[in-house]
Amino acid sequence: MSFGKQKTNPKRKVALIGCGLIGQSWAISFLNAGFDVSLFDPVEGVTVQAKEKIKAKLKDLQNYGLLENKNISDYLDKIHLAQKLSHAVKGSVYVQESGPEDLDIKKDLTKKIDAATVADIPIASSTSGIPTSLYANNVKGRCRCLVAHPINPPHLIPAVEIVPAPFTSEAITQKVKKIITSIDKEPLELKKEIQGFVVNRLQGALLNEAFNLIKEGISSAEDIDKAISEGLGLRWSFMGPFQTIHLNAPEGIKGYVARYEKMYDEMFPSIDINWSELVKNRLEKELLKLYSVKDREKHESLRDIRLIRLLAHKALTKN
Amino acid sequence: MSFGKQKTNPKRKVALIGCGLIGQSWAISFLNAGFDVSLFDPVEGVTVQAKEKIKAKLKDLQNYGLLENKNISDYLDKIHLAQKLSHAVKGSVYVQESGPEDLDIKKDLTKKIDAATVADIPIASSTSGIPTSLYANNVKGRCRCLVAHPINPPHLIPAVEIVPAPFTSEAITQKVKKIITSIDKEPLELKKEIQGFVVNRLQGALLNEAFNLIKEGISSAEDIDKAISEGLGLRWSFMGPFQTIHLNAPEGIKGYVARYEKMYDEMFPSIDINWSELVKNRLEKELLKLYSVKDREKHESLRDIRLIRLLAHKALTKN
Repeated sequence: MSFGKQKTNPKRKVALIGCGLIGQSWAISFLNAGFDVSLFDPVEGVTVQAKEKIKAKLKDLQNYGLLENKNISDYLDKIHLAQKLSHAVKGSVYVQESGPEDLDIKKDLTKKIDAATVADIPIASSTSGIPTSLYANNVKGRCRCLVAHPINPPHLIPAVEIVPAPFTSEAITQKVKKIITSIDKEPLELKKEIQGFVVNRLQGALLNEAFNLIKEGISSAEDIDKAISEGLGLRWSFMGPFQTIHLNAPEGIKGYVARYEKMYDEMFPSIDINWSELVKNRLEKELLKLYSVKDREKHESLRDIRLIRLLAHKALTKN
Repeated sequence: MSFGKQKTNPKRKVALIGCGLIGQSWAISFLNAGFDVSLFDPVEGVTVQAKEKIKAKLKDLQNYGLLENKNISDYLDKIHLAQKLSHAVKGSVYVQESGPEDLDIKKDLTKKIDAATVADIPIASSTSGIPTSLYANNVKGRCRCLVAHPINPPHLIPAVEIVPAPFTSEAITQKVKKIITSIDKEPLELKKEIQGFVVNRLQGALLNEAFNLIKEGISSAEDIDKAISEGLGLRWSFMGPFQTIHLNAPEGIKGYVARYEKMYDEMFPSIDINWSELVKNRLEKELLKLYSVKDREKHESLRDIRLIRLLAHKALTKN
């Protein structure tokens, strides 16, 4: 995410339906990329409060030199408070719904948005857990519905999960990826729906083990937190788990798995996933394309330099 | 870890046995904290090469302004290459063994170190997977043996797992924690031994799910990596998983678990860990002591400011 790259998107407007924390964060991301935003919330008064909160968050970003426009008012002028859903979606190129995590509410809201919005405009939901096939199956324009799930706090975390239902049109999925990229976010596309999507499944797996370590009396919560914040999380702030292990053995992921699969198997005897088979048949090819073994030293020294910079950065900004 | 806080530790020397990548990294950490280091490796010529590699890594740190001493030679003067194990341990206040991950080699090496080293000096192993009760059970001075497991690359990652065996003396464990703290590392104490310790169990749980997502054809390896490096890993670079969820609900971890435990349960039906019970009986008390709900807004805004700074830092240091 590169704040400050203010783009001109003349006459481009998006509709944000539901203006709690998540909706407010979406507003900041779209505003910062030059979009106009129309805010609508079924509860009266919420959009006015939301605008105030957006203003405060924009000021925070500005204080850190992360907004290009000097005047917050340039952004505020692009916020339109809609009295009706139909006003918000009118003229919008994209609709993002950030309503409550309740299946019935989401079903109802999506139907209403679909009825009010012209065809071909994508309708994305911020839901962190309800797949589109559950809430939009009976919606007329269901082929333009899908999930675009941001991570808390969404105006600061780049990753956005794009989760199409089986009935979502491929053209809509690609259009949404483009829009998400255009606001300097990182779209992660899921090829099919799965309970919890990718981000919360990865977090959930790690949390389950963290809770297990507490249950077994192995360590304090503080020390488990430090295992991440002073350990694994440093590397993970700029490279993912596959790249990490790919760089942890001279022969890349193949060598890592050959060396350590048994150790991990013994830690989790009930989990039956054949790492080496997956590496051989799928992962190695993809990873070698991204990070070839030939360039290993370069990638390794880049990793170390990034860690050095990160540590210097952390030391400087401790409080 | 605060590089550059060069401390004076007159006449304090440690012995580093095994001088591959891990041993070299330990050398840097100890040198940078003002210790003298004696290097010994059973394979001839290894210590000479190790000294060269340490020199190169010190230069990297210096290039980023992270060493206080202007002259690399100040550090190099404190490196002593030992021809014999007994020479290395003589006068050392601490012994760190970083030999190969092989049970028989570790058994043999630990016996030799124990025989050569005066009583009460801790003998720590860098092993990432072999518990002390397996390799040191028959060692005479086993009560001073334990694991001090660093994370790759060890001269840059602060966390070090301290894993005593049931026979390790409490005084030794505390002494080792002090020494590790004195070289600006973060000791994480395990209350008992467990296969894989804490760090690799957390990493392993996440890796298993990452491999599972590949197996199920949900996402590309690149997108799974980004779910961490552009998502969860940003928060985790300065706060652990428990603090993260504690800040993700207005009522703290109790509220988070009340809201989301069912969602995580449904993702992992075969894992049977009662989160809410653990929160009620153990976690909430500890977490509220560390991060009270009263100070929630302060912690939340500190999180956001750190994220803002991290993003600015990442944008500046992309390559």
